[in-house]
Amino acid sequence: MNNFTYYTPTKIYFGKGQISHLDELAEFGQRVLLVYGSGSIKRLGIYNEAIKLLNDAGLTVFELSGVEANPKVGLVRNGISLCRENNIDMVLAIGGGSVIDTAKSIAAGTCYEGDVWDLIEDSSKIKNALPILTVLTLSATGSEMNKNAVLTNTDLHVKASMSSDLLKPRISILDPTYTFSVSRIQTAAGTADMISHAFENYFSPIRDSFLSIQFGEAVLRTCFKYGPIALNEPDNYEARANLMWASTNAINGITKSGAEVGWCCHPIEHELSAWYDITHGIGLAIITPRWMKHILNEKTVWKFAEYGRNVWGITGGNDMTVAEESISKTASFFFDELGLPSTLSAVGINDERFELMAESAAPSCQKGLVPLSKEDILEIFRASA
Amino acid sequence: MNNFTYYTPTKIYFGKGQISHLDELAEFGQRVLLVYGSGSIKRLGIYNEAIKLLNDAGLTVFELSGVEANPKVGLVRNGISLCRENNIDMVLAIGGGSVIDTAKSIAAGTCYEGDVWDLIEDSSKIKNALPILTVLTLSATGSEMNKNAVLTNTDLHVKASMSSDLLKPRISILDPTYTFSVSRIQTAAGTADMISHAFENYFSPIRDSFLSIQFGEAVLRTCFKYGPIALNEPDNYEARANLMWASTNAINGITKSGAEVGWCCHPIEHELSAWYDITHGIGLAIITPRWMKHILNEKTVWKFAEYGRNVWGITGGNDMTVAEESISKTASFFFDELGLPSTLSAVGINDERFELMAESAAPSCQKGLVPLSKEDILEIFRASA
Repeated sequence: MNNFTYYTPTKIYFGKGQISHLDELAEFGQRVLLVYGSGSIKRLGIYNEAIKLLNDAGLTVFELSGVEANPKVGLVRNGISLCRENNIDMVLAIGGGSVIDTAKSIAAGTCYEGDVWDLIEDSSKIKNALPILTVLTLSATGSEMNKNAVLTNTDLHVKASMSSDLLKPRISILDPTYTFSVSRIQTAAGTADMISHAFENYFSPIRDSFLSIQFGEAVLRTCFKYGPIALNEPDNYEARANLMWASTNAINGITKSGAEVGWCCHPIEHELSAWYDITHGIGLAIITPRWMKHILNEKTVWKFAEYGRNVWGITGGNDMTVAEESISKTASFFFDELGLPSTLSAVGINDERFELMAESAAPSCQKGLVPLSKEDILEIFRASA
Repeated sequence: MNNFTYYTPTKIYFGKGQISHLDELAEFGQRVLLVYGSGSIKRLGIYNEAIKLLNDAGLTVFELSGVEANPKVGLVRNGISLCRENNIDMVLAIGGGSVIDTAKSIAAGTCYEGDVWDLIEDSSKIKNALPILTVLTLSATGSEMNKNAVLTNTDLHVKASMSSDLLKPRISILDPTYTFSVSRIQTAAGTADMISHAFENYFSPIRDSFLSIQFGEAVLRTCFKYGPIALNEPDNYEARANLMWASTNAINGITKSGAEVGWCCHPIEHELSAWYDITHGIGLAIITPRWMKHILNEKTVWKFAEYGRNVWGITGGNDMTVAEESISKTASFFFDELGLPSTLSAVGINDERFELMAESAAPSCQKGLVPLSKEDILEIFRASA
């Protein structure tokens, strides 16, 4: 069991109607930048409710809308200008991970003299950030309780993250009813995303971090149980609530305490999103079972067997047959139960950039259960084609 | 799944050598009150190491030692005087739950004009507290990451708690090697204590808080697996580390998110400790299986069956047989595997105060899976005699 630091200072208000706690934002100042996406929060009434609560609390609200999936650094720069021009005290994100990551980047970039992209290249430059608050409307990235913000630079074709304790939200409001209207494909992709986060933490070479391994298995079982229910019954509160809480706990540190984490599928997928702007969770679903097959061998079989027995309840067989069955079940979950696209060609990606992307991802895949070379990643791309 | 607030701002430094982070205390001021117990931290070398680190960081150290099990309000009052006389900036506890709870009470009491016992009677009076820091040397109470401080008033024969977010430690250092020297009986009692915390959160009437129920089961399986190993191999790092992290997570909120928590065994045990000054974990171990048998019925059997199947891996049988077997296994774990005393008479408690104690505990046992009347508690006492 490795040494670790565990630090989750975000105050979570979870459940129906918790948006009422927006009045607490007054403790962080008087001027708030509200960041959101394409306007679904207006259709759902969340926007009006938030504005009323903020105004009643004496806050002045400035707005930045139009955040897209795979959020772009350009909009972040606009947000930073807005904050500086208007002496903004805090940034409130209402949306999913892209909106929250945009808000985080604005919060850090406002307090940094140079260009915000520098903070992606060197997070140690983050010395301060405006307070970050979130109201979550999509269960997926876990950004509501972690220290990361992922941005895409379309000029450079790079999708990468900045990371700092200063980016941990002060307050996050998690109302599962806000996710009732999330589309089938986004629900499926979000579930794949949180599963991948749990996997990145779970497939660790450390065998004796028993408690956190089991926490990870709890998150995984929750996703496998409730993902399909949420698809079929979009307003099933139990399913939406458990998925929302799973998404937060998949990547807030609780499932990796004591582990040695590799975090390999994400860098590979980030190449796909950076070049092809595909939905992150879809890219992860396509890559993950191929990554699993690629790293399964006599040395790693114990971990897959543990996964198969503890998460999928597979009985009988030897370690290798259990491991292989666990990978089949994972693939079947993504492609049959969640109905996600199963190949890169199905999302319009051909092999022309495999070499380029494999070379770019490899340096970020050097830890964990099995470090990956450029050749390894190329094989995973080819198996995913 | 109920609404909940989840807030764990304590920064945890977990693992070997993490005491080096004591230098970070300088951010909280310059004058620290060090609180500890009977001196075992001197024998173990932790005291010297801490003093050196604190002095090197430019801190001036004042001391309050002599904290006993079931910590007394009298010593807390002494500590408050020390803090006021010396303009103390922060309180550092090095020890187990009793030491930490003493430190917390001093931290709150120093910032309160009246007598500190008022804060037990009405925690809303806690409006401020000195920063609290801890170095844990005993895995049991979870006080290192929660908002509670339990004190005993020997004049009133009352053991009760104050509770406030202001009592959550800023930093807690959890080095499992510090627990290698914990005695057999204290290891067993500490394990029983953390199991009871997990039970209090787990035996909830809410069926659909799936993720947090599984988090609770993970904590329980960890205790059942590693408690006996720690007894037999006191310096087994894997066992001590998993127990330590289980003790923290048993009562930091993660296992009760969305649940409706009763918290019944603790008020009953607090009566025993308040009158007879017995070890808290021993009292809990004696009471718990009798409490389980008392509340098992057709309405609650589903929960015990869930417990038996998911935690103990019991297969076959119907809900009631699984439930009964799960209670037998729990009792056997406490009394056979951990070797704890199994009856009240074995710890010198006879029936003369059963009525008095049952009446006193009942008002605190009115929530959860089965609220308990005075008569219920009397029966539990009699079954434990």
